[in-house]
Amino acid sequence: MAPQLDGYFKQVDLMADSFINRLRSAVAIPSVSAVPDLRPKVVAMADFLEKELKALGASVEKRLPGKQPGHPSLDLPPIILGRYGSDAKKRTILVYGHYDVQPALKEDGWATDPFDLTVDEQGRMYGRGSTDDKGPVLGWINAIEAHQKAGVDFPVNLLMCFEGMEEYGSEGLDDVIKAEASKFFKDAEAVCISDNYWLGTEKPCLTYGLRGCSYYSLTVSGPGQDLHSGVFGGTVTEPMTDLVRLLATLVDSKGKIQIPGLNELVAPLTDEEKELYKDISFEMSDLYQSLGSETSIHSNKEDTLMARWRFPTLSIHGIEGAYSAPGAKTVIPAKVIGKFSIRTVPNMEPDKVDELVFKSVDAEWKKLGSNNTMKCELQHSGNWWVASPKHWNFSAASKAVEKVFGVKPDFTREGGSIPVTLTFEQATGKNVLLLPMGSSTDAAHSINEKLDKRNYIEGIKLLGAYLHYAAEEAQV
Amino acid sequence: MAPQLDGYFKQVDLMADSFINRLRSAVAIPSVSAVPDLRPKVVAMADFLEKELKALGASVEKRLPGKQPGHPSLDLPPIILGRYGSDAKKRTILVYGHYDVQPALKEDGWATDPFDLTVDEQGRMYGRGSTDDKGPVLGWINAIEAHQKAGVDFPVNLLMCFEGMEEYGSEGLDDVIKAEASKFFKDAEAVCISDNYWLGTEKPCLTYGLRGCSYYSLTVSGPGQDLHSGVFGGTVTEPMTDLVRLLATLVDSKGKIQIPGLNELVAPLTDEEKELYKDISFEMSDLYQSLGSETSIHSNKEDTLMARWRFPTLSIHGIEGAYSAPGAKTVIPAKVIGKFSIRTVPNMEPDKVDELVFKSVDAEWKKLGSNNTMKCELQHSGNWWVASPKHWNFSAASKAVEKVFGVKPDFTREGGSIPVTLTFEQATGKNVLLLPMGSSTDAAHSINEKLDKRNYIEGIKLLGAYLHYAAEEAQV
Repeated sequence: MAPQLDGYFKQVDLMADSFINRLRSAVAIPSVSAVPDLRPKVVAMADFLEKELKALGASVEKRLPGKQPGHPSLDLPPIILGRYGSDAKKRTILVYGHYDVQPALKEDGWATDPFDLTVDEQGRMYGRGSTDDKGPVLGWINAIEAHQKAGVDFPVNLLMCFEGMEEYGSEGLDDVIKAEASKFFKDAEAVCISDNYWLGTEKPCLTYGLRGCSYYSLTVSGPGQDLHSGVFGGTVTEPMTDLVRLLATLVDSKGKIQIPGLNELVAPLTDEEKELYKDISFEMSDLYQSLGSETSIHSNKEDTLMARWRFPTLSIHGIEGAYSAPGAKTVIPAKVIGKFSIRTVPNMEPDKVDELVFKSVDAEWKKLGSNNTMKCELQHSGNWWVASPKHWNFSAASKAVEKVFGVKPDFTREGGSIPVTLTFEQATGKNVLLLPMGSSTDAAHSINEKLDKRNYIEGIKLLGAYLHYAAEEAQV
Repeated sequence: MAPQLDGYFKQVDLMADSFINRLRSAVAIPSVSAVPDLRPKVVAMADFLEKELKALGASVEKRLPGKQPGHPSLDLPPIILGRYGSDAKKRTILVYGHYDVQPALKEDGWATDPFDLTVDEQGRMYGRGSTDDKGPVLGWINAIEAHQKAGVDFPVNLLMCFEGMEEYGSEGLDDVIKAEASKFFKDAEAVCISDNYWLGTEKPCLTYGLRGCSYYSLTVSGPGQDLHSGVFGGTVTEPMTDLVRLLATLVDSKGKIQIPGLNELVAPLTDEEKELYKDISFEMSDLYQSLGSETSIHSNKEDTLMARWRFPTLSIHGIEGAYSAPGAKTVIPAKVIGKFSIRTVPNMEPDKVDELVFKSVDAEWKKLGSNNTMKCELQHSGNWWVASPKHWNFSAASKAVEKVFGVKPDFTREGGSIPVTLTFEQATGKNVLLLPMGSSTDAAHSINEKLDKRNYIEGIKLLGAYLHYAAEEAQV
C-alpha cells in the first residue's frame, strides 16, 4: 500500500513559518568549529538540538570525543546520538548531519549578517549554515514534529547522529561511529545522509558515488636557508627549478594525468553506464556559471559529468616555502613543498596509486640530474565510494522525490569526498544514501550561503516521505 | 710622493674605543626604515649624523624627499648631504652610505639585543646595522676626526650622501641624486660606496661590477574564483597546471637558461678575463658554508665565480595566489602568478631580454593549447654595471688596501644589484668604486649581524688612506 502522505504534507505547509523560525534560531548560534574561541557556541548548538529533540520525545545521548588534537585544553564538541521510536515492528533508519558551520564574517563580503537568517522576496534564506547543514538537520526534527501535529504515525524508528566538527575534519567522529556500530547504531537497516546538493536548481538527485582523494607533498630541498638570488643565483642548484619541472610532469593542460599506469587502473566505461549520463539534468551553462568562466576542459555534458564523477583528476594546489606574497622578492627558496592530489575512482586502489605516483616522480627526478634532495609523501588519502542505486534505500528515496516534486530524481555521483559516507558504510555494513536538500547555487562555504525556502519546506516533506517509503520498500 | 699615513693610522688605533662607542650609539637607534612606527628613530639617526658631522666642522644640508609612496601621512626620512672641506686645490670625492637598517627582533633568534652593540672575545661586534651600513658610514666620520686629532691635513674635499631608506628600496633617492648632480655633487671627481662585503674573511676586495636584474610575473587565470578540486577537478582547465608547465620551460636544473637567444646576448669570455679568476681568494668551502649545503652547480672556483658574476641566471621565486600554507587544501586556484627574475650581465640590453622572455613564454604557451589566459609582464628591471678597474679611483683604493692590509686586493664583481651605483655613475658621469669594509660572514639582513673589530678599525684606516691616494693618483 502506498504511503498516505497528504496529512503530513499539509501539516508541513501549515508549519512553514515555524520551521523557518527554527532555522533562524539555529543560524543565530555561530557554531564555527574552526575557531577555538567560538567553541562554546558549537556546544550551545548541540544543547539547542538536544532540547528540541527531547521536547519531541526523542531520547538523546551525547558522546564526548575528548580534547581536540593539537589543542590540549580544547574539548571537542559532543556528538549527539538521538533515537525517536523503538518499535521492533518498524524499520530503523540512521540519519547523519552536522551542526557546526564554516567561518563567516560580515566583512568577508556578506550582503547580510551571516548569523541572522534573512529571507528575500524570492524566498532565498541567507545565513551561515542555512544549507550546510543546519537546514537538513532541522529537516529531520521538523519531520518528527509535523507527524506529531498531523497525528500521522511515524513510519520508522529514527536513529540520529549529529556531529559538531564536520567543517574541521570531523575530528573524533570515526572512532565514535566504529564504537557505536554494534551499540547505538546496531538496529540501523540503512543510512541516509543529507549533506550535499542537487546538481542544478530544479531537479532533485540521489547520490550514489563519491571520488576518493590521495593528497601528496613533493619536497625539494638543498641549501641550509633561503638565499639571495643575486648573490647565489648561478652557483646553487635551485630547489624551485627542480620542483616546477617535477610538477610539470604530473598532468597536462587538458587534465590528462601523465603518471604511467594510473589511467589503466580506472574501471572501463560500459555502454550501459554511458547511457546514464544522457538524461541527467545538467547544462554546460550550469558549469560555466559555477566556474565564473567558460574555461572548461570538455565542451559537452556527458564528458564533463564523467570527468567529474567517474574519471580521476590531478590538481596542483600550490607550493609551500616559496615566495607567495604580492610584489617582488629576489629569493632562492631553500626548501619548497609542492602539494598535489589525485581524485580517485573505481577501481583505483589507494596503495597502488601511491606506488605509481612515487615511481613516476622518482623516475622524473632521476632525469633532472639534480644534486638537491627530493621526497614525495602521501599526506592523506580517502577511498572512493560507490553504492548500489538499486537498493531499497535508493528506491524509497526515488519514490519520495517523485511524490514530492513530481519528477524522477537524477542518480548522480560527486567529484568530491564525504569521508563519513564510507565510514558509515564500513562500520554498519548497510547501504548509505546521499539525499540532498539544497541546490547547486546555495554557496555552502562561501559568502551569502543560502537555502531556498522551496528546498527547505519541500525538503522536509521529502525526508518524511522517504522514511514512509523506506518503511514499505521490499528488501532488495 | 707617497702619502704619509703613520700619524693617521696611529691616531685611529688610539681612538679605537671611542670609535666603537660611536658605533654603539648609532646601533642603539633602531632606525628600521621598513617599519612605519619606527620612522621617528630613522629621523633620530639622521639627527645623530648631522650632529656628529657638524661637531667636526662639516656643513650639512638635508633633503626631504616628501611622503612615502603608499603612506600618505608618512614622511620619508631626510637625505643627509655633507661637505667637509672646500679647497679648490684638492680633489673632491663623493661618498655614499645609508643610516637605516633591516628590521630586527631579539625573538627572531638573536643571541644578544640587536640594538645593543655587544663585542665578544674574538672582537666580533654584534648589532643590527653594525656592518650594514652604520659601521662604514661612521668610518668616514671617524676618518675626519682622526685626521683632526692627529693634526694631519685632510687630503680631499669630502662630499657625503647618507640616505635613510636603503633597506626599503631607496625611495626618493634617485630624484635627489639626479637633482644634486649639477649642484651639491657638482665638484665630485669620483664616487666611493662602502656598502658591500669582502668575498671572504681575510682579503679585502674592490668591486667593479654588478649584475642587473629583470623581474617578471607570469599570470595564468581562468575561473572567476578559487574552486574545490573535488567538485571541479576534471572539468576545468587548471591555471596552476599551465603555470608550472610554463615555469618549467625557463631554466634547467643545472641553471642553464632555456629561453632561446638569451645566452647569446652575453659578452664572450676572453682568455684575459678568464685568467683574472684564478688568483681570486675564494674556496669552494666558502661557498658551501654560505649555502649551508654542498648543492652547488659547479665544482670549481673559476666556474662558480663566473656563474655568479659574469653569466646570467634565472631564479623562480614563487607563486602568488596558490595554496602556500602548511597542511593540505583541496583548492584549484583561479589565478596564479609565477615570479621569476633574470640576473643580467654585459651585454644584455634589458629591452632585448624582455623581448626574448615574452617571445619564449608566448611560444611555450601556444604549445600548451590552454583556454586559460596568460600574461607575462616585467615587474621591474635594473641594468648591470661594470666600471673600469684601471681608473685612478680604483688604483688609489688598491694602494690603500696594500698599505693597510699588506696584500693586493682582489678585484671582484658581485652577483647582486646595488642600484644606487648605476644612479651615481649616470648622474655624475664619474667613476664609481665599491670599497667594502665588512667581511663575507657579517650576516647583513640576518640575525646576529656583526662587524669584526679588525674590519672596522682597519677599515677606518683604509677609508682615510684611500682618500690620500685618491688625492695623489694621476688621472687615467
